[in-house]
Amino acid sequence: MIEPTLSSPIGVFDSGLGGLTVVRSLLEDLPQESLIYLGDTARVPYGTKSREAIFRFAEEGSAFLLGKGIKLMVLACNTMSATALPELAARLGVPVVGVIDPGVEEAIRVSTGGRIGVIGTAATIGSQAYRRSIQARKPEWLVFSQACPLFVPLVEEGWEETEVAAMTARHYLAPLLAQGIDTLVLGCTHYPLLLPTLRRVVGSDIRIVDSATQTSREVKNLLARTVPENPGPASPMRCYLTDIPPSFIGVADRFLGRPVTHVERASLTP
Amino acid sequence: MIEPTLSSPIGVFDSGLGGLTVVRSLLEDLPQESLIYLGDTARVPYGTKSREAIFRFAEEGSAFLLGKGIKLMVLACNTMSATALPELAARLGVPVVGVIDPGVEEAIRVSTGGRIGVIGTAATIGSQAYRRSIQARKPEWLVFSQACPLFVPLVEEGWEETEVAAMTARHYLAPLLAQGIDTLVLGCTHYPLLLPTLRRVVGSDIRIVDSATQTSREVKNLLARTVPENPGPASPMRCYLTDIPPSFIGVADRFLGRPVTHVERASLTP
Repeated sequence: MIEPTLSSPIGVFDSGLGGLTVVRSLLEDLPQESLIYLGDTARVPYGTKSREAIFRFAEEGSAFLLGKGIKLMVLACNTMSATALPELAARLGVPVVGVIDPGVEEAIRVSTGGRIGVIGTAATIGSQAYRRSIQARKPEWLVFSQACPLFVPLVEEGWEETEVAAMTARHYLAPLLAQGIDTLVLGCTHYPLLLPTLRRVVGSDIRIVDSATQTSREVKNLLARTVPENPGPASPMRCYLTDIPPSFIGVADRFLGRPVTHVERASLTP
Repeated sequence: MIEPTLSSPIGVFDSGLGGLTVVRSLLEDLPQESLIYLGDTARVPYGTKSREAIFRFAEEGSAFLLGKGIKLMVLACNTMSATALPELAARLGVPVVGVIDPGVEEAIRVSTGGRIGVIGTAATIGSQAYRRSIQARKPEWLVFSQACPLFVPLVEEGWEETEVAAMTARHYLAPLLAQGIDTLVLGCTHYPLLLPTLRRVVGSDIRIVDSATQTSREVKNLLARTVPENPGPASPMRCYLTDIPPSFIGVADRFLGRPVTHVERASLTP
Protein backbone atom coordinates (compact mmCIF):
# COMPACT_ATOMS: atom_id res chain seq x y z
CA MET A 1 0.00 0.00 0.00
CA ILE A 2 1.28 3.45 -0.97
CA GLU A 3 0.98 6.03 1.84
CA PRO A 4 -1.74 8.54 0.84
CA THR A 5 -0.92 12.26 0.59
CA LEU A 6 -3.00 15.40 0.10
CA SER A 7 -2.96 14.99 -3.65
CA SER A 8 -3.65 11.23 -3.60
CA PRO A 9 -6.65 10.22 -5.68
CA ILE A 10 -10.07 9.12 -4.50
CA GLY A 11 -10.85 5.56 -5.64
CA VAL A 12 -14.32 4.79 -6.98
CA PHE A 13 -15.15 1.08 -7.25
CA ASP A 14 -18.14 -0.43 -9.01
CA SER A 15 -19.07 -3.82 -10.44
CA GLY A 16 -19.37 -2.21 -13.87
CA LEU A 17 -20.17 1.18 -15.29
CA GLY A 18 -23.14 2.30 -13.16
CA GLY A 19 -20.76 3.88 -10.63
CA LEU A 20 -19.98 6.52 -13.24
CA THR A 21 -23.22 8.22 -12.16
CA VAL A 22 -21.51 8.73 -8.78
CA VAL A 23 -18.35 9.97 -10.53
CA ARG A 24 -20.51 12.48 -12.38
CA SER A 25 -21.62 13.97 -9.05
CA LEU A 26 -18.08 13.83 -7.60
CA LEU A 27 -16.69 15.74 -10.59
CA GLU A 28 -19.24 18.48 -9.93
CA ASP A 29 -18.89 18.62 -6.15
CA LEU A 30 -15.11 18.07 -5.86
CA PRO A 31 -13.56 19.36 -9.09
CA GLN A 32 -10.09 19.70 -7.53
CA GLU A 33 -9.86 16.00 -6.53
CA SER A 34 -8.18 13.35 -8.70
CA LEU A 35 -10.25 10.22 -9.29
CA ILE A 36 -9.43 6.61 -10.13
CA TYR A 37 -12.34 4.49 -11.30
CA LEU A 38 -12.39 0.69 -11.19
CA GLY A 39 -15.20 -1.22 -12.94
CA ASP A 40 -15.15 -5.03 -12.78
CA THR A 41 -16.72 -5.30 -16.22
CA ALA A 42 -15.38 -8.86 -16.72
CA ARG A 43 -17.66 -10.14 -13.93
CA VAL A 44 -20.51 -7.62 -14.00
CA PRO A 45 -23.29 -7.86 -12.84
CA TYR A 46 -22.72 -8.56 -9.14
CA GLY A 47 -26.37 -8.12 -8.15
CA THR A 48 -27.48 -11.59 -9.22
CA LYS A 49 -24.54 -13.36 -7.57
CA SER A 50 -23.99 -14.89 -4.12
CA ARG A 51 -22.90 -13.00 -1.04
CA GLU A 52 -19.64 -14.99 -0.95
CA ALA A 53 -18.79 -14.12 -4.57
CA ILE A 54 -19.59 -10.42 -4.09
CA PHE A 55 -17.44 -10.29 -0.98
CA ARG A 56 -14.45 -11.88 -2.73
CA PHE A 57 -14.80 -9.52 -5.71
CA ALA A 58 -15.02 -6.52 -3.34
CA GLU A 59 -11.79 -7.57 -1.61
CA GLU A 60 -9.91 -8.03 -4.89
CA GLY A 61 -11.01 -4.65 -6.24
CA SER A 62 -10.19 -2.83 -3.01
CA ALA A 63 -6.68 -4.31 -3.01
CA PHE A 64 -6.20 -3.07 -6.57
CA LEU A 65 -7.24 0.49 -5.68
CA LEU A 66 -5.15 0.55 -2.50
CA GLY A 67 -2.20 -0.41 -4.67
CA LYS A 68 -2.81 2.80 -6.62
CA GLY A 69 -2.36 4.90 -3.46
CA ILE A 70 -5.91 6.15 -2.94
CA LYS A 71 -6.73 8.26 0.13
CA LEU A 72 -10.44 7.32 0.28
CA MET A 73 -12.58 4.67 -1.41
CA VAL A 74 -16.14 5.11 -2.64
CA LEU A 75 -18.02 1.83 -3.03
CA ALA A 76 -20.18 3.21 -5.85
CA CYS A 77 -22.27 0.06 -6.03
CA ASN A 78 -25.27 -0.70 -3.87
CA THR A 79 -24.71 -4.44 -4.10
CA MET A 80 -21.19 -4.16 -2.62
CA SER A 81 -22.21 -1.48 -0.12
CA ALA A 82 -25.00 -3.76 1.09
CA THR A 83 -22.77 -6.83 1.33
CA ALA A 84 -19.17 -5.93 2.10
CA LEU A 85 -18.94 -2.36 3.41
CA PRO A 86 -18.51 -2.91 7.17
CA GLU A 87 -15.79 -5.55 6.72
CA LEU A 88 -13.88 -3.47 4.17
CA ALA A 89 -14.19 -0.29 6.24
CA ALA A 90 -12.79 -2.10 9.30
CA ARG A 91 -9.55 -3.16 7.66
CA LEU A 92 -8.76 -1.06 4.60
CA GLY A 93 -6.74 1.68 6.33
CA VAL A 94 -8.46 4.45 4.34
CA PRO A 95 -12.01 5.77 4.82
CA VAL A 96 -14.67 3.92 2.84
CA VAL A 97 -17.93 5.59 1.76
CA GLY A 98 -20.81 3.45 0.51
CA VAL A 99 -23.94 4.55 -1.30
CA ILE A 100 -26.55 3.21 1.10
CA ASP A 101 -26.30 5.44 4.19
CA PRO A 102 -26.21 8.68 2.15
CA GLY A 103 -29.40 7.61 0.34
CA VAL A 104 -31.03 6.61 3.60
CA GLU A 105 -30.22 9.93 5.27
CA GLU A 106 -31.73 11.84 2.36
CA ALA A 107 -34.83 9.63 2.39
CA ILE A 108 -35.28 10.38 6.10
CA ARG A 109 -34.87 14.09 5.42
CA VAL A 110 -37.49 14.25 2.65
CA SER A 111 -40.05 11.62 3.68
CA THR A 112 -43.41 13.08 4.60
CA GLY A 113 -44.99 10.00 6.16
CA GLY A 114 -42.34 7.43 7.09
CA ARG A 115 -43.32 4.96 4.36
CA ILE A 116 -40.22 4.27 2.27
CA GLY A 117 -39.98 2.19 -0.90
CA VAL A 118 -36.56 0.81 -1.89
CA ILE A 119 -35.69 -0.69 -5.27
CA GLY A 120 -32.40 -2.40 -6.19
CA THR A 121 -30.75 -5.57 -7.44
CA ALA A 122 -31.67 -8.98 -6.05
CA ALA A 123 -28.51 -9.00 -3.88
CA THR A 124 -29.10 -5.48 -2.49
CA ILE A 125 -32.74 -6.14 -1.63
CA GLY A 126 -31.97 -9.64 -0.31
CA SER A 127 -29.35 -8.16 2.05
CA GLN A 128 -32.01 -6.00 3.80
CA ALA A 129 -29.29 -3.35 4.17
CA TYR A 130 -31.63 -0.43 3.39
CA ARG A 131 -34.31 -1.67 5.75
CA ARG A 132 -31.78 -2.09 8.57
CA SER A 133 -30.19 1.31 7.95
CA ILE A 134 -33.56 3.12 7.88
CA GLN A 135 -34.99 1.31 10.88
CA ALA A 136 -31.79 1.86 12.91
CA ARG A 137 -32.58 5.58 12.63
CA LYS A 138 -36.38 5.41 12.54
CA PRO A 139 -37.55 2.16 14.17
CA GLU A 140 -41.21 2.98 13.63
CA TRP A 141 -40.92 3.70 9.89
CA LEU A 142 -42.13 1.17 7.33
CA VAL A 143 -39.82 0.01 4.54
CA PHE A 144 -41.13 -1.79 1.44
CA SER A 145 -38.53 -3.35 -0.86
CA GLN A 146 -38.59 -4.65 -4.40
CA ALA A 147 -35.82 -6.28 -6.44
CA CYS A 148 -35.87 -5.08 -10.06
CA PRO A 149 -33.40 -7.33 -11.94
CA LEU A 150 -34.47 -6.12 -15.39
CA PHE A 151 -33.69 -2.44 -14.80
CA VAL A 152 -29.91 -2.80 -15.21
CA PRO A 153 -30.09 -4.63 -18.56
CA LEU A 154 -32.77 -2.17 -19.78
CA VAL A 155 -30.50 0.77 -19.00
CA GLU A 156 -27.46 -0.93 -20.54
CA GLU A 157 -29.48 -1.57 -23.71
CA GLY A 158 -30.40 2.14 -23.83
CA TRP A 159 -34.12 1.35 -23.47
CA GLU A 160 -34.74 3.45 -20.34
CA GLU A 161 -37.41 5.62 -21.93
CA THR A 162 -39.24 2.93 -23.92
CA GLU A 163 -42.70 1.52 -23.31
CA VAL A 164 -41.00 -1.76 -22.36
CA ALA A 165 -39.21 0.07 -19.53
CA ALA A 166 -42.44 1.77 -18.44
CA MET A 167 -44.35 -1.51 -18.40
CA THR A 168 -41.54 -3.20 -16.46
CA ALA A 169 -41.49 -0.33 -13.97
CA ARG A 170 -45.27 -0.48 -13.51
CA HIS A 171 -44.98 -4.19 -12.75
CA TYR A 172 -42.14 -3.82 -10.24
CA LEU A 173 -43.53 -0.71 -8.52
CA ALA A 174 -47.18 -1.78 -8.20
CA PRO A 175 -46.69 -3.52 -4.82
CA LEU A 176 -44.84 -0.45 -3.43
CA LEU A 177 -47.50 1.95 -4.69
CA ALA A 178 -50.19 -0.29 -3.19
CA GLN A 179 -48.46 0.19 0.20
CA GLY A 180 -48.78 3.96 -0.08
CA ILE A 181 -45.06 4.82 -0.04
CA ASP A 182 -44.26 8.54 0.10
CA THR A 183 -40.56 8.20 -0.85
CA LEU A 184 -38.79 5.93 -3.32
CA VAL A 185 -35.05 5.26 -2.90
CA LEU A 186 -33.15 4.30 -6.08
CA GLY A 187 -30.91 1.63 -4.58
CA CYS A 188 -28.76 1.03 -7.68
CA THR A 189 -26.41 3.37 -9.51
CA HIS A 190 -27.98 2.46 -12.86
CA TYR A 191 -31.41 3.72 -11.87
CA PRO A 192 -30.90 7.49 -12.15
CA LEU A 193 -31.06 6.99 -15.92
CA LEU A 194 -34.59 5.62 -15.46
CA LEU A 195 -35.71 8.72 -13.56
CA PRO A 196 -38.09 10.17 -16.22
CA THR A 197 -39.80 6.78 -16.63
CA LEU A 198 -40.00 6.16 -12.87
CA ARG A 199 -41.42 9.65 -12.35
CA ARG A 200 -44.19 8.96 -14.88
CA VAL A 201 -45.02 5.65 -13.17
CA VAL A 202 -45.09 6.89 -9.56
CA GLY A 203 -46.67 10.29 -10.24
CA SER A 204 -45.61 13.67 -8.90
CA ASP A 205 -46.32 13.25 -5.15
CA ILE A 206 -43.72 10.63 -4.29
CA ARG A 207 -40.18 11.86 -3.45
CA ILE A 208 -37.46 10.05 -5.42
CA VAL A 209 -34.02 9.81 -3.79
CA ASP A 210 -30.95 9.23 -5.98
CA SER A 211 -28.05 8.04 -3.84
CA ALA A 212 -25.36 9.12 -6.36
CA THR A 213 -25.89 12.81 -5.54
CA GLN A 214 -26.06 12.14 -1.79
CA THR A 215 -22.94 10.00 -1.82
CA SER A 216 -20.93 12.73 -3.44
CA ARG A 217 -22.01 15.17 -0.68
CA GLU A 218 -21.03 12.60 1.96
CA VAL A 219 -17.56 12.31 0.41
CA LYS A 220 -17.21 16.09 0.48
CA ASN A 221 -18.19 16.19 4.17
CA LEU A 222 -15.86 13.37 5.04
CA LEU A 223 -12.92 15.01 3.29
CA ALA A 224 -13.64 18.21 5.18
CA ARG A 225 -13.55 16.28 8.48
CA THR A 226 -10.76 13.73 8.00
CA VAL A 227 -8.67 13.54 4.87
CA PRO A 228 -7.32 16.87 3.60
CA GLU A 229 -8.73 18.06 0.31
CA ASN A 230 -6.43 18.16 -2.68
CA PRO A 231 -5.31 21.75 -3.24
CA GLY A 232 -5.62 20.86 -6.92
CA PRO A 233 -5.50 20.90 -9.81
CA ALA A 234 -6.96 17.41 -10.35
CA SER A 235 -5.30 14.89 -12.66
CA PRO A 236 -7.58 13.55 -15.40
CA MET A 237 -9.64 10.60 -14.15
CA ARG A 238 -8.02 7.23 -14.80
CA CYS A 239 -10.56 4.52 -15.61
CA TYR A 240 -9.55 0.86 -15.03
CA LEU A 241 -11.82 -1.87 -16.36
CA THR A 242 -11.38 -5.64 -16.12
CA ASP A 243 -12.91 -5.99 -19.59
CA ILE A 244 -13.48 -3.50 -22.39
CA PRO A 245 -16.35 -4.84 -24.50
CA PRO A 246 -17.31 -3.14 -27.79
CA SER A 247 -20.43 -1.63 -26.21
CA PHE A 248 -18.37 0.12 -23.51
CA ILE A 249 -17.98 3.56 -25.04
CA GLY A 250 -21.65 4.36 -25.61
CA VAL A 251 -22.78 3.05 -22.22
CA ALA A 252 -19.97 4.70 -20.24
CA ASP A 253 -20.50 8.08 -21.87
CA ARG A 254 -24.23 7.99 -21.09
CA PHE A 255 -23.56 7.27 -17.40
CA LEU A 256 -20.86 9.90 -17.06
CA GLY A 257 -22.59 12.52 -19.20
CA ARG A 258 -19.33 13.20 -21.07
CA PRO A 259 -16.72 11.11 -22.92
CA VAL A 260 -14.67 8.69 -20.80
CA THR A 261 -10.94 8.92 -21.57
CA HIS A 262 -7.78 7.33 -20.08
CA VAL A 263 -9.24 3.80 -20.08
CA GLU A 264 -6.92 0.91 -19.17
CA ARG A 265 -7.48 -2.79 -18.70
CA ALA A 266 -6.94 -4.11 -15.15
CA SER A 267 -6.55 -7.64 -13.81
CA LEU A 268 -7.91 -8.32 -10.31
CA THR A 269 -7.01 -12.01 -10.12
CA PRO A 270 -3.43 -13.32 -9.85
CA MET B 1 -5.32 -34.58 -18.32
CA ILE B 2 -6.85 -37.97 -17.46
CA GLU B 3 -6.94 -40.44 -20.40
CA PRO B 4 -10.60 -40.86 -21.44
CA THR B 5 -12.18 -44.33 -21.41
CA LEU B 6 -15.48 -45.73 -22.65
CA SER B 7 -17.24 -44.76 -19.48
CA SER B 8 -15.67 -41.28 -19.24
CA PRO B 9 -18.20 -38.48 -18.95
CA ILE B 10 -19.20 -35.94 -21.57
CA GLY B 11 -18.38 -32.38 -20.43
CA VAL B 12 -20.96 -29.65 -21.05
CA PHE B 13 -19.64 -26.09 -20.63
CA ASP B 14 -21.72 -22.93 -20.53
CA SER B 15 -21.27 -19.39 -19.26
CA GLY B 16 -24.16 -19.94 -16.85
CA LEU B 17 -27.27 -22.07 -16.70
CA GLY B 18 -28.64 -21.78 -20.26
CA GLY B 19 -26.60 -24.81 -21.33
CA LEU B 20 -28.91 -26.94 -19.20
CA THR B 21 -31.37 -26.78 -22.14
CA VAL B 22 -28.71 -28.74 -24.10
CA VAL B 23 -28.27 -31.12 -21.16
CA ARG B 24 -32.01 -31.72 -21.23
CA SER B 25 -31.75 -32.93 -24.84
CA LEU B 26 -28.60 -34.98 -24.11
CA LEU B 27 -30.31 -36.77 -21.23
CA GLU B 28 -33.11 -37.78 -23.61
CA ASP B 29 -30.93 -38.75 -26.57
CA LEU B 30 -28.03 -40.38 -24.69
CA PRO B 31 -29.42 -41.72 -21.41
CA GLN B 32 -26.51 -44.13 -20.89
CA GLU B 33 -23.83 -41.38 -20.95
CA SER B 34 -22.47 -39.70 -17.80
CA LEU B 35 -22.46 -35.91 -17.89
CA ILE B 36 -20.42 -33.22 -16.14
CA TYR B 37 -21.81 -29.70 -16.38
CA LEU B 38 -19.74 -26.56 -15.83
CA GLY B 39 -21.47 -23.18 -15.57
CA ASP B 40 -19.31 -20.08 -15.01
CA THR B 41 -22.02 -18.41 -12.97
CA ALA B 42 -19.50 -16.10 -11.22
CA ARG B 43 -18.81 -14.30 -14.52
CA VAL B 44 -22.08 -14.84 -16.43
CA PRO B 45 -23.13 -13.36 -18.84
CA TYR B 46 -20.41 -13.75 -21.48
CA GLY B 47 -22.48 -12.32 -24.34
CA THR B 48 -21.92 -8.66 -23.44
CA LYS B 49 -18.16 -9.08 -22.91
CA SER B 50 -15.16 -8.71 -25.22
CA ARG B 51 -13.82 -11.40 -27.52
CA GLU B 52 -10.58 -11.53 -25.48
CA ALA B 53 -12.41 -12.06 -22.18
CA ILE B 54 -14.67 -14.77 -23.64
CA PHE B 55 -11.67 -16.57 -25.10
CA ARG B 56 -9.82 -16.56 -21.78
CA PHE B 57 -12.90 -17.79 -19.89
CA ALA B 58 -13.37 -20.58 -22.48
CA GLU B 59 -9.79 -21.75 -22.02
CA GLU B 60 -10.06 -21.79 -18.22
CA GLY B 61 -13.33 -23.76 -18.27
CA SER B 62 -12.04 -26.27 -20.82
CA ALA B 63 -8.96 -26.92 -18.70
CA PHE B 64 -11.21 -27.58 -15.69
CA LEU B 65 -13.33 -30.12 -17.59
CA LEU B 66 -10.29 -31.87 -19.11
CA GLY B 67 -9.00 -32.27 -15.57
CA LYS B 68 -12.19 -34.24 -14.84
CA GLY B 69 -11.33 -36.78 -17.57
CA ILE B 70 -14.05 -36.00 -20.12
CA LYS B 71 -14.08 -37.85 -23.46
CA LEU B 72 -15.90 -35.12 -25.40
CA MET B 73 -16.78 -31.48 -24.69
CA VAL B 74 -19.98 -29.72 -25.66
CA LEU B 75 -19.67 -25.92 -25.78
CA ALA B 76 -23.32 -25.40 -24.85
CA CYS B 77 -23.07 -21.66 -25.28
CA ASN B 78 -23.47 -19.79 -28.54
CA THR B 79 -21.20 -16.96 -27.41
CA MET B 80 -18.27 -19.34 -26.79
CA SER B 81 -19.05 -21.46 -29.87
CA ALA B 82 -18.99 -18.28 -31.97
CA THR B 83 -15.77 -17.00 -30.44
CA ALA B 84 -13.50 -19.80 -29.30
CA LEU B 85 -14.57 -23.11 -30.88
CA PRO B 86 -11.98 -23.55 -33.67
CA GLU B 87 -9.03 -22.74 -31.41
CA LEU B 88 -10.25 -25.03 -28.61
CA ALA B 89 -11.06 -27.87 -31.03
CA ALA B 90 -7.56 -27.66 -32.52
CA ARG B 91 -5.74 -28.25 -29.25
CA LEU B 92 -7.99 -29.85 -26.66
CA GLY B 93 -7.22 -33.51 -27.46
CA VAL B 94 -10.90 -34.52 -27.21
CA PRO B 95 -13.67 -33.80 -29.73
CA VAL B 96 -15.47 -30.47 -29.21
CA VAL B 97 -19.05 -29.90 -30.33
CA GLY B 98 -20.46 -26.38 -30.50
CA VAL B 99 -24.05 -25.28 -30.85
CA ILE B 100 -23.75 -23.21 -34.02
CA ASP B 101 -23.12 -25.73 -36.80
CA PRO B 102 -25.90 -28.09 -35.62
CA GLY B 103 -28.36 -25.17 -35.66
CA VAL B 104 -27.14 -24.05 -39.07
CA GLU B 105 -27.53 -27.53 -40.57
CA GLU B 106 -31.07 -27.78 -39.29
CA ALA B 107 -31.89 -24.29 -40.61
CA ILE B 108 -30.61 -25.33 -44.05
CA ARG B 109 -32.70 -28.49 -43.90
CA VAL B 110 -35.98 -26.72 -43.04
CA SER B 111 -35.68 -23.36 -44.82
CA THR B 112 -38.17 -22.94 -47.64
CA GLY B 113 -36.70 -19.84 -49.24
CA GLY B 114 -33.11 -19.28 -48.15
CA ARG B 115 -33.86 -16.24 -46.00
CA ILE B 116 -32.58 -16.96 -42.49
CA GLY B 117 -33.00 -14.81 -39.38
CA VAL B 118 -30.57 -15.33 -36.50
CA ILE B 119 -31.00 -13.96 -32.96
CA GLY B 120 -28.44 -14.15 -30.15
CA THR B 121 -26.32 -12.20 -27.69
CA ALA B 122 -24.33 -9.13 -28.75
CA ALA B 123 -21.11 -11.19 -28.84
CA THR B 124 -22.64 -14.02 -30.90
CA ILE B 125 -24.20 -11.68 -33.45
CA GLY B 126 -21.11 -9.45 -33.53
CA SER B 127 -18.93 -12.48 -34.34
CA GLN B 128 -20.90 -13.15 -37.58
CA ALA B 129 -20.36 -16.87 -36.88
CA TYR B 130 -23.87 -17.88 -38.00
CA ARG B 131 -23.68 -15.84 -41.19
CA ARG B 132 -20.31 -17.36 -42.08
CA SER B 133 -21.43 -20.90 -41.30
CA ILE B 134 -24.63 -20.57 -43.35
CA GLN B 135 -22.99 -18.85 -46.31
CA ALA B 136 -20.10 -21.37 -46.35
CA ARG B 137 -22.76 -23.96 -47.20
CA LYS B 138 -25.22 -21.77 -49.15
CA PRO B 139 -23.37 -18.74 -50.54
CA GLU B 140 -26.50 -17.36 -52.21
CA TRP B 141 -28.67 -17.45 -49.07
CA LEU B 142 -29.46 -14.28 -47.16
CA VAL B 143 -28.83 -14.04 -43.41
CA PHE B 144 -30.37 -11.30 -41.25
CA SER B 145 -29.06 -11.01 -37.69
CA GLN B 146 -30.30 -9.28 -34.56
CA ALA B 147 -28.69 -9.06 -31.10
CA CYS B 148 -31.33 -9.39 -28.34
CA PRO B 149 -29.52 -8.51 -25.08
CA LEU B 150 -32.71 -8.35 -23.02
CA PHE B 151 -33.86 -11.90 -23.74
CA VAL B 152 -31.43 -13.57 -21.29
CA PRO B 153 -32.37 -11.36 -18.30
CA LEU B 154 -36.08 -11.74 -19.17
CA VAL B 155 -35.76 -15.53 -19.10
CA GLU B 156 -33.69 -15.49 -15.90
CA GLU B 157 -36.38 -13.31 -14.27
CA GLY B 158 -39.01 -15.88 -15.30
CA TRP B 159 -40.83 -13.29 -17.45
CA GLU B 160 -40.67 -15.22 -20.73
CA GLU B 161 -44.43 -15.33 -21.23
CA THR B 162 -45.26 -11.78 -20.11
CA GLU B 163 -46.43 -8.85 -22.22
CA VAL B 164 -43.04 -7.22 -21.52
CA ALA B 165 -41.34 -10.19 -23.20
CA ALA B 166 -43.77 -10.06 -26.14
CA MET B 167 -43.23 -6.33 -26.63
CA THR B 168 -39.45 -6.77 -26.43
CA ALA B 169 -39.62 -9.62 -28.96
CA ARG B 170 -41.76 -7.54 -31.34
CA HIS B 171 -39.17 -4.77 -31.17
CA TYR B 172 -36.17 -7.04 -31.79
CA LEU B 173 -37.83 -9.16 -34.48
CA ALA B 174 -39.47 -6.38 -36.52
CA PRO B 175 -36.41 -5.82 -38.75
CA LEU B 176 -36.10 -9.57 -39.43
CA LEU B 177 -39.81 -9.92 -40.24
CA ALA B 178 -39.56 -6.88 -42.54
CA GLN B 179 -36.89 -8.80 -44.49
CA GLY B 180 -39.28 -11.70 -45.07
CA ILE B 181 -37.28 -14.39 -43.26
CA ASP B 182 -38.68 -17.93 -43.61
CA THR B 183 -36.59 -19.45 -40.78
CA LEU B 184 -35.53 -18.10 -37.38
CA VAL B 185 -32.52 -19.63 -35.60
CA LEU B 186 -32.45 -19.31 -31.80
CA GLY B 187 -28.76 -18.57 -31.35
CA CYS B 188 -28.70 -18.68 -27.56
CA THR B 189 -29.40 -21.55 -25.18
CA HIS B 190 -31.73 -19.36 -23.11
CA TYR B 191 -34.11 -18.72 -25.98
CA PRO B 192 -35.95 -22.08 -26.13
CA LEU B 193 -37.81 -20.91 -23.01
CA LEU B 194 -39.13 -17.96 -25.05
CA LEU B 195 -40.51 -20.26 -27.75
CA PRO B 196 -44.25 -19.71 -27.08
CA THR B 197 -43.77 -15.92 -27.07
CA LEU B 198 -41.56 -15.96 -30.19
CA ARG B 199 -44.09 -18.18 -31.98
CA ARG B 200 -46.86 -15.68 -31.26
CA VAL B 201 -44.72 -12.80 -32.53
CA VAL B 202 -43.48 -14.42 -35.76
CA GLY B 203 -46.72 -16.26 -36.64
CA SER B 204 -47.12 -19.86 -37.76
CA ASP B 205 -45.36 -19.80 -41.16
CA ILE B 206 -41.79 -19.19 -40.03
CA ARG B 207 -39.72 -22.24 -39.04
CA ILE B 208 -38.01 -21.85 -35.65
CA VAL B 209 -34.77 -23.79 -35.12
CA ASP B 210 -33.63 -24.57 -31.56
CA SER B 211 -29.95 -25.51 -31.56
CA ALA B 212 -30.13 -27.41 -28.23
CA THR B 213 -32.02 -30.29 -29.82
CA GLN B 214 -29.79 -30.31 -32.90
CA THR B 215 -26.60 -30.22 -30.82
CA SER B 216 -27.65 -33.28 -28.88
CA ARG B 217 -28.18 -35.18 -32.18
CA GLU B 218 -24.75 -34.06 -33.39
CA VAL B 219 -23.16 -35.42 -30.19
CA LYS B 220 -24.93 -38.74 -30.72
CA ASN B 221 -23.67 -38.94 -34.32
CA LEU B 222 -20.15 -38.03 -33.31
CA LEU B 223 -20.05 -40.66 -30.56
CA ALA B 224 -21.24 -43.26 -33.07
CA ARG B 225 -18.38 -42.32 -35.43
CA THR B 226 -15.45 -41.62 -33.10
CA VAL B 227 -15.65 -42.00 -29.33
CA PRO B 228 -17.24 -45.26 -28.13
CA GLU B 229 -20.58 -44.88 -26.36
CA ASN B 230 -20.72 -45.67 -22.69
CA PRO B 231 -22.21 -49.17 -22.23
CA GLY B 232 -23.88 -47.61 -19.18
CA PRO B 233 -25.39 -47.18 -16.76
CA ALA B 234 -24.75 -43.42 -16.49
CA SER B 235 -23.56 -41.82 -13.26
CA PRO B 236 -25.79 -39.00 -11.98
CA MET B 237 -24.87 -35.68 -13.62
CA ARG B 238 -22.35 -33.64 -11.63
CA CYS B 239 -22.97 -29.91 -11.86
CA TYR B 240 -20.04 -27.55 -11.18
CA LEU B 241 -20.74 -23.85 -10.81
CA THR B 242 -18.30 -21.00 -10.13
CA ASP B 243 -20.97 -19.29 -8.02
CA ILE B 244 -24.20 -20.53 -6.45
CA PRO B 245 -26.49 -17.53 -6.01
CA PRO B 246 -29.77 -17.86 -4.11
CA SER B 247 -31.78 -17.70 -7.35
CA PHE B 248 -29.92 -20.70 -8.77
CA ILE B 249 -32.33 -23.49 -7.89
CA GLY B 250 -35.44 -22.09 -9.52
CA VAL B 251 -33.67 -21.00 -12.71
CA ALA B 252 -31.67 -24.21 -13.13
CA ASP B 253 -34.71 -26.43 -12.63
CA ARG B 254 -36.68 -24.49 -15.27
CA PHE B 255 -33.87 -24.90 -17.83
CA LEU B 256 -33.33 -28.58 -17.11
CA GLY B 257 -37.02 -29.43 -16.72
CA ARG B 258 -36.26 -31.41 -13.55
CA PRO B 259 -34.41 -30.77 -10.26
CA VAL B 260 -30.65 -30.23 -10.51
CA THR B 261 -28.76 -32.29 -7.92
CA HIS B 262 -25.04 -32.94 -7.17
CA VAL B 263 -24.10 -29.25 -7.34
CA GLU B 264 -20.54 -28.28 -6.36
CA ARG B 265 -18.66 -25.01 -6.40
CA ALA B 266 -15.71 -24.82 -8.82
CA SER B 267 -12.84 -22.35 -9.10
CA LEU B 268 -11.49 -21.67 -12.60
CA THR B 269 -8.81 -19.14 -11.66
CA PRO B 270 -5.61 -20.04 -9.81
